[in-house]
Amino acid sequence: MVLYIIGLGLGDEKDVTIKGFEAIKKSSKIYLEAYTSLLGGSTSIEALEKFYEKKIIIADREMVESGCEEMLKESTENDVSFLVVGDPFGATTHTDLVIRAKELSIPVKVIHNASIMNAIGCCGLQLYSYGQTISMVFFTETTKPDSWYDRVKINRVNGMHTLCLLDIKVKEQSIENMCRGRLIYEPPRFMTVNQCIEQLLEIEEIRKEKVYDQDTLCIGLSRVGQDDQQIISGTMKELLDVDFGAPLHSFIICGDMHFIEKEYFETFRVKKN
Amino acid sequence: MVLYIIGLGLGDEKDVTIKGFEAIKKSSKIYLEAYTSLLGGSTSIEALEKFYEKKIIIADREMVESGCEEMLKESTENDVSFLVVGDPFGATTHTDLVIRAKELSIPVKVIHNASIMNAIGCCGLQLYSYGQTISMVFFTETTKPDSWYDRVKINRVNGMHTLCLLDIKVKEQSIENMCRGRLIYEPPRFMTVNQCIEQLLEIEEIRKEKVYDQDTLCIGLSRVGQDDQQIISGTMKELLDVDFGAPLHSFIICGDMHFIEKEYFETFRVKKN
Repeated sequence: MVLYIIGLGLGDEKDVTIKGFEAIKKSSKIYLEAYTSLLGGSTSIEALEKFYEKKIIIADREMVESGCEEMLKESTENDVSFLVVGDPFGATTHTDLVIRAKELSIPVKVIHNASIMNAIGCCGLQLYSYGQTISMVFFTETTKPDSWYDRVKINRVNGMHTLCLLDIKVKEQSIENMCRGRLIYEPPRFMTVNQCIEQLLEIEEIRKEKVYDQDTLCIGLSRVGQDDQQIISGTMKELLDVDFGAPLHSFIICGDMHFIEKEYFETFRVKKN
Repeated sequence: MVLYIIGLGLGDEKDVTIKGFEAIKKSSKIYLEAYTSLLGGSTSIEALEKFYEKKIIIADREMVESGCEEMLKESTENDVSFLVVGDPFGATTHTDLVIRAKELSIPVKVIHNASIMNAIGCCGLQLYSYGQTISMVFFTETTKPDSWYDRVKINRVNGMHTLCLLDIKVKEQSIENMCRGRLIYEPPRFMTVNQCIEQLLEIEEIRKEKVYDQDTLCIGLSRVGQDDQQIISGTMKELLDVDFGAPLHSFIICGDMHFIEKEYFETFRVKKN
């Protein structure tokens, strides 16, 4: 039978394609990948279940990383749908799953959808002109990973825009709970645009290679692809205390802008007080 | 009323999202942007009209570049849908249209979908690791534009992958017909992977900056997102005479590959004769 890997897009339950919806309807089991991404705030697993009239099984980190064995076994006998927020090959690739399915001779059908990697075009910067994408993870007291700084530098030196994907912490355990083997999880955390800017400036302060500064033009976005999405442009300093509301947030460090990009940028410019 | 700008995705009429479909159903006029892109070969305007049960108006280059005035006027009174193959802000941005609608105080609602810019993830190279995208246009006897060479160089030097979007010529006039003012158009032309490689190697031969050569690893793709999509990897030389079939074709010059990218690359490797 067929393993459908279906992108749900970025908004609510109606952002699935008709092709995806039809595949879900005829699948005997439906899994939802729910550890690298997050359903849009205007929907929920319950809303999806109601809309599809199907039960959804949550595929968490343990399940996906341990190879989805049960799901693959099921796929040899019945149609199975594996749902992914955004596009299946978006920010997190599921190529590993495809390789394993191929090894087991299970036909795989990918149903694409929008992901942050192309929907980010909504801010008006040409998708052509982005360099490498970076992932900004939460700094801790002891670790401040900054390998992304070199990539931002390459992008900036060459006039390219940089998309920053912001950290999501789901099913985190506190060190105490982990030590005691208690399966108690911390509430989910999502990095804000403000936290991203703070971390960017903190590393610039340490590395001092003049890759960007608080006057660098940038764009903060939240809930891209949802009805209440927000796009605000300005300098890093200006956006440092803008409230972007509910997650998910995304951030762009602008490279060289053409005049039409610049014109569009200005339409989103933060209001000066 | 609302101007809906709706991505159709890359496949057939069922790749529209449910949200997009509902917007189309309630619109009084439906336009299809049909000069920068192409409907998937497995669908047609007639198939779309039948599926939507609506008449579709073709928005050609003249109409879009002259500002879509009639469409915008219509949008002040009724819901109007403007359909775009892929995503509205994909390879060709429609930011200009959004700006004009905003000036006229027409509410705009964008409904995202997959585009080549994110669906290209299907070949297994991480979307994170692409540099700037280039557009390869048909060379003529007299012009061989090569400004993309510098961008490929930046990408290659820094280990980034390069997506090459290949030229589409629709509604071209021959010089003779143009001079005589005859509105006779040449048949549409679509650049093949083979033609792209020829042009790449031709410019390397002229510029000699050792950005790539015939042994450089690359991936050719055709009809991405459609049922009969094809992905074949190999060296430029190996792919030079592979038949990728019907349009559209896309091409990737690989940068540094991580082991899982490499593993996936090998699954698509061209068969040696």
